[in-house]
Amino acid sequence: MLTLFHYPLFASSRFVRLAFGEYGEELALIEEKPWLRRKEFLALNPAGTLPVLLAEGDVPIVGASVIAEYLDETRGVLKRERRLFAEDPMHRAEIRRLADWYLTKAETEVTRHLVRERVLKPLIPSVDGGGSPDSGAIRAARSNIKQHMKYTNWLAGTRNWLAGSRLTYADLAAASMLSVLDYLGEIDWSDYPQAKEWYTRLKSRPSFRPLLGDRVRSMSPVSHYADLDF
Amino acid sequence: MLTLFHYPLFASSRFVRLAFGEYGEELALIEEKPWLRRKEFLALNPAGTLPVLLAEGDVPIVGASVIAEYLDETRGVLKRERRLFAEDPMHRAEIRRLADWYLTKAETEVTRHLVRERVLKPLIPSVDGGGSPDSGAIRAARSNIKQHMKYTNWLAGTRNWLAGSRLTYADLAAASMLSVLDYLGEIDWSDYPQAKEWYTRLKSRPSFRPLLGDRVRSMSPVSHYADLDF
Repeated sequence: MLTLFHYPLFASSRFVRLAFGEYGEELALIEEKPWLRRKEFLALNPAGTLPVLLAEGDVPIVGASVIAEYLDETRGVLKRERRLFAEDPMHRAEIRRLADWYLTKAETEVTRHLVRERVLKPLIPSVDGGGSPDSGAIRAARSNIKQHMKYTNWLAGTRNWLAGSRLTYADLAAASMLSVLDYLGEIDWSDYPQAKEWYTRLKSRPSFRPLLGDRVRSMSPVSHYADLDF
Repeated sequence: MLTLFHYPLFASSRFVRLAFGEYGEELALIEEKPWLRRKEFLALNPAGTLPVLLAEGDVPIVGASVIAEYLDETRGVLKRERRLFAEDPMHRAEIRRLADWYLTKAETEVTRHLVRERVLKPLIPSVDGGGSPDSGAIRAARSNIKQHMKYTNWLAGTRNWLAGSRLTYADLAAASMLSVLDYLGEIDWSDYPQAKEWYTRLKSRPSFRPLLGDRVRSMSPVSHYADLDF
């Protein structure tokens, strides 16, 4: 079994767990707190970021998109219609663009700030950067949620899955990010019916179940978080 | 001929130009000023970021790493020992990790800030976000240069090219980023002899020549910028 260094409320960690889950491959999970900058962890990834996969031979594979490509090259390519990627280079580019949209753009504009201010700061000693949440940062991040929800709603309304007719990495990236915001109660689903229908389908998949059981000490999820009929 | 929307002093744009240059494939270049948020450009890439490649059939391929994967799938795979990528999935993961290090991590910590403050702000009307440079942002970015130079020096000292025995995307990503800092006179090469030797080799390649001719209106390069014996 391969090992994943992850943090439960980081979208990029969730993305990797979902991808392995879709392929029915279990991961040994190690919860890493990257803000502690553990020496042993920095030896695996000098950038100090999550997720990190220990692949065959304990070789570290660093970063969500790098792990996704590795997973496709070593497993996905054999999965036929269950493959989370496409065969055609243009379609692959579109899946990568969308995965990057959610795992980088939305992460930078929204998720990272809300997780840091609302989840991590209460957990982290102030000497390590914890302390009171910055309400300005929370407000700025919240003001960016709408454009990502509108875009997701539009994609979900025009395609069966976000990148076309099949479930792909694009869906897992979007769902990872939205599931973190949903845990925090930041999404008003009633405004985005197509996104809600799409997310309900994803949430009901067996690969999603472990994520719905995630809890962090500093904050419980909103009541509908694990509810399949929300 | 394919078309690339780019900006001369953006590392991620340079990276794509170098990659096509290494394969001897010319690109039609369109200089895009993404801060203007042109409607026609946003229609190609709703994220409003560079670079964007118009591939076969004018289909937009968005983002440096997505373009690099597309280029590998449609051209690189046929280039044998001139391929800028590896065949082995673990080695591919290492190349992707390093490319991401320079195009994302170093970009976020260093290059983006210095380009914005020193090159773009003098060019952009204050109503669009231009104006006086923020000396605090410049100082913070400069303090991060050293770790990236030390890491590059270490990689260049232990391997023939940054990701192993062959020239790969990792080298092009690092050189793109460092060439922007070098244009701005931000690198003291005498402190990093192995990085300098590696960079000299890259700078002498035909693919690099167009970059050495780049100029932006707001700032001339330092005197040694285009000098192959610096």
